[in-house]
Amino acid sequence: MTRPRIVLDAMGGDNAPGEPVAGALMAAGVLGAEIILVGRKDAVEPELRGTGTIRDVRVVEAPDVIEMDEHATEAVRAKPLSSINVGLQMVKRGEADAFVTAGNTGATMAAALLTLGRVKGIGRPALATIFPAAEGRLTMLLDVGANADCRPIHLVQFAHMGSAYMERMFGLQRPRVALLSIGEEETKGNQLTLEVHQLLRGSRLNFIGNVEGKDLPRGLADVVVMDGFTGNVVLKTAEGIAELLFTELRKAVELTPWNKAAGLILMSELRKVKRRLDYAEYGGAQLIGVDGIVVIGHGRSNARAIYNALKAARDAVQNGVLETMRAVGKEVPARGQPGGEAAAGDTSGED
Amino acid sequence: MTRPRIVLDAMGGDNAPGEPVAGALMAAGVLGAEIILVGRKDAVEPELRGTGTIRDVRVVEAPDVIEMDEHATEAVRAKPLSSINVGLQMVKRGEADAFVTAGNTGATMAAALLTLGRVKGIGRPALATIFPAAEGRLTMLLDVGANADCRPIHLVQFAHMGSAYMERMFGLQRPRVALLSIGEEETKGNQLTLEVHQLLRGSRLNFIGNVEGKDLPRGLADVVVMDGFTGNVVLKTAEGIAELLFTELRKAVELTPWNKAAGLILMSELRKVKRRLDYAEYGGAQLIGVDGIVVIGHGRSNARAIYNALKAARDAVQNGVLETMRAVGKEVPARGQPGGEAAAGDTSGED
Repeated sequence: MTRPRIVLDAMGGDNAPGEPVAGALMAAGVLGAEIILVGRKDAVEPELRGTGTIRDVRVVEAPDVIEMDEHATEAVRAKPLSSINVGLQMVKRGEADAFVTAGNTGATMAAALLTLGRVKGIGRPALATIFPAAEGRLTMLLDVGANADCRPIHLVQFAHMGSAYMERMFGLQRPRVALLSIGEEETKGNQLTLEVHQLLRGSRLNFIGNVEGKDLPRGLADVVVMDGFTGNVVLKTAEGIAELLFTELRKAVELTPWNKAAGLILMSELRKVKRRLDYAEYGGAQLIGVDGIVVIGHGRSNARAIYNALKAARDAVQNGVLETMRAVGKEVPARGQPGGEAAAGDTSGED
Repeated sequence: MTRPRIVLDAMGGDNAPGEPVAGALMAAGVLGAEIILVGRKDAVEPELRGTGTIRDVRVVEAPDVIEMDEHATEAVRAKPLSSINVGLQMVKRGEADAFVTAGNTGATMAAALLTLGRVKGIGRPALATIFPAAEGRLTMLLDVGANADCRPIHLVQFAHMGSAYMERMFGLQRPRVALLSIGEEETKGNQLTLEVHQLLRGSRLNFIGNVEGKDLPRGLADVVVMDGFTGNVVLKTAEGIAELLFTELRKAVELTPWNKAAGLILMSELRKVKRRLDYAEYGGAQLIGVDGIVVIGHGRSNARAIYNALKAARDAVQNGVLETMRAVGKEVPARGQPGGEAAAGDTSGED
């Protein structure tokens, strides 16, 4: 197999270009992939200087930078030579196999849709993330933020994409697909989830029913689908609660010398727990349903998170995730008919 | 002031009637309220036997029990003599000032709406809970589960009710009201939150803008509004993440004798942290917007959680929360006009 070529946005994230470059250097020679740093050479090259090896790493100039707080679609149009646009164009032209960024999520999604387009047959791309569940199990959550408003067919398509992804990437047999709702019973939910429940029941997927927010860390399902508003709220709430807990624990440890000693003993274990919960460690989120491999890391990504995002991109390339998604697009239902598989020619484009 | 009379559903919750009765006994003589246990006398009275004092506690017969997993509206209609129905009817007839249960949330909401009705001017009652935020701050979240689908005006009314509640109960001056969304900018959100944002900006409330899931434990706002689907997902996700963390910590503590010793030292602190996160400790959720005081505890409530729910109900009665909600109903906007205050006569009933 040829070596995967991964474009990394050197200007993306709160800690750019330092951490992206450091992440690229961690990955170089280890991942068996070529890393193409895209960004302002005058900012990136000083970061590379003095490092022992830059084997497998090269830099491509992109003079513009889209900042973290810029308006997504406006920035994408106003800055065609931004690192995000330049990097995605390399993927579009076949000069690279994947694009990785810790930059502006909205801008990356907008640019990816504009540059790479959708996989034929998929109405809406989704942001998918792997959530660390109990006992080392992995659960894919999608959509976690690409589509604030969804129609039932979108969630059905997310379910098909997620199932195919977990099958392909982790070798799962008939992945267990669930729907996030507010009760296990099929009668519990909002209008959207009530309809999606029926559609998924009629599908050929291994649909195990509804799960609730408290079930997400339990690993009951391999794939859990939701609209992008709900998904974003879930991830951010999980992040906030974990932060609160660790802040409180840190305070408790400071209270007395005995607590401090106890804290020192437990600290390495605590750090492991924290790392499991820190979804940046899990290779960021993948934008599936666009016609290319795109991985978006947390804006606060450090070098290790960047390394993991690069690894996730490499694994997706090597496992042929894009080809899998194209196959899903050919057979996924295009409208809301229960169990109906759309004719291959019916790709019903929509915005 | 006369002594508040609180009806407690002795048959409600996973641990009924044992824990509700134990909670009533904890509260008796301490809260300065009369506790009326409603339920099957043959089940409740044995639990009272042998206890030292039953001052302030009496039992009212209700032969039927609505189980935790029964279909809400069907059960309410099929069992008019259930403890939930009998208790709420006592409030309706003015024989009690508040109703408290750890039983079937859906059935309680349905029965409360049927028996007590809505506060005039309020379109939809909401389930409101107090979330423990950083540095001892309290944030009211609503709706956390009464209305899976909401229109913009409902969230605006929730904001008015929440603000008035926090002002009345905790003496806050112009409580800070926020909207849960997926970004701070007013352009971030789904159709519902985009509209609600504009309506709240035009209102007379102290609207501080959008907050995200990660901000909820930070105490940035005194009231955060959301639709009931999202609110349920937020609470359940928080519960799940806290559970995951404590399970992992417990495992870490078991790994070596040193860890075990360290765990023992830290355990009481850890328990305090856990208690802060256990929202059952915070007096359960209050159904505001129905024409009566109704507090719904977690199904897993133990005696302490029941005690806290009784205390929350007593505080609501003593602070005149129902009168406050009636005043809100008179001046709250009834339709989606920005800043518009409905005429007092326009109470625009709806389902």
